[in-house]
Amino acid sequence: MKARVTIMPRTGVLDPQGEAIRHALGGLGFKGVTSVRQGKVIELDLEATDPEAARSEVARMCDRLLANSVIESYRVELL
Amino acid sequence: MKARVTIMPRTGVLDPQGEAIRHALGGLGFKGVTSVRQGKVIELDLEATDPEAARSEVARMCDRLLANSVIESYRVELL
Repeated sequence: MKARVTIMPRTGVLDPQGEAIRHALGGLGFKGVTSVRQGKVIELDLEATDPEAARSEVARMCDRLLANSVIESYRVELL
Repeated sequence: MKARVTIMPRTGVLDPQGEAIRHALGGLGFKGVTSVRQGKVIELDLEATDPEAARSEVARMCDRLLANSVIESYRVELL
């Protein structure tokens, strides 16, 4: 079973990478970009076959390692 | 209009970040993880209102700045 975790900076948390991208896009002539946020996506291949068990295991991975819940939020999708 | 770009290392390209995550998850006791790939997700707020124009503009941003097409593939979604 495959899972995809999308991790984004929380609303209100500064995102200097996103801001750098917005600035660079403007410099390349892409003028209509008002805001950019950059996050991470992590795709996992799991041995688990039960969707609910897989989802809760991936949530525990996020809480323990993958995401910093103070400044990041995450979303788990099973593929 | 919002767009989300998901950028992943191409199949066959080494992904040391993903491998480091897999190793760390194993060390934390998550044994059923066979493979991990890490990529980026970039969310853009655009002034464009036409979906087709927005999609092609974001594809040009990917080709010029956001993705390295030699080692990365990207997917554009309009939200």
